[in-house]
Amino acid sequence: MKAQSLIVPLVMAAALSVSCGNKSGAEECAPLRGAEKAAGKLPMSEDGIVRLSKIEVHPESLAEYLRFAEDVGEASMLTEPGVLVMYAMQDKEAPCRVTILEIYASREAYKSHIASPHFRKYKQGTLRMVKSLELCDQRPLNPRNVISGRIAE
Amino acid sequence: MKAQSLIVPLVMAAALSVSCGNKSGAEECAPLRGAEKAAGKLPMSEDGIVRLSKIEVHPESLAEYLRFAEDVGEASMLTEPGVLVMYAMQDKEAPCRVTILEIYASREAYKSHIASPHFRKYKQGTLRMVKSLELCDQRPLNPRNVISGRIAE
Repeated sequence: MKAQSLIVPLVMAAALSVSCGNKSGAEECAPLRGAEKAAGKLPMSEDGIVRLSKIEVHPESLAEYLRFAEDVGEASMLTEPGVLVMYAMQDKEAPCRVTILEIYASREAYKSHIASPHFRKYKQGTLRMVKSLELCDQRPLNPRNVISGRIAE
Repeated sequence: MKAQSLIVPLVMAAALSVSCGNKSGAEECAPLRGAEKAAGKLPMSEDGIVRLSKIEVHPESLAEYLRFAEDVGEASMLTEPGVLVMYAMQDKEAPCRVTILEIYASREAYKSHIASPHFRKYKQGTLRMVKSLELCDQRPLNPRNVISGRIAE
């Protein structure tokens, strides 16, 4: 069985929906499409991004890669108000396959993320470890079915 | 590029970690590995399941399938305390590819889910619409990086 997902350019971001209408401000917009505003986080805006990043790691680099991925996820969640979810998972049956569910509040939040020191450290540090990378932008099926993320104490 | 994920049997559930220790009860266990206890939901237990279900739908059935998937996700989130997350996404570049992030509080919660009337309705109703299905159990990389889901009002 083959999953023939396409490689989506890094800069691609696609419009989600739910506009703010005439409410008293962007902060009033929750609940929003696909992600819920958590404490300290920005609300999802019309150009927010829901993405599955699908990474295949070279087996000899796996342990090191996983540390990089864990670190960048935690730093992003802790320091970036526009990173609403960054949830990294390792396939139990194919451990070199890592999937990260990423939700950015806006295209601007995504740009800020890829310019951050922790993302640059991750990207540079793992370049040679990554065998393949697919960035698959998603449309959540149900705007009422929302998730939120945080770093637990 | 091919994603060669394996087909995992429906009944497979793999142990996550974080035991309750000697706290005053299971309800005190949050935050737990990979998912956070939300209002009205059970805490994640040691045999909880984090899964990516990867579905390819026959194009001619796509619109109808999406309604089934939306309905089963909402019913599961609203009525099942052990369904912590059921977040369905459609690939923007390959619309017939649907991925559902599913988090069950325990193996028992999963069994209860697949025995529920809404799941049976979905499963029976979509049998002929689904071209392929992969159930890929996952290990969240960072136990502190938690997500939670709910149906917004």
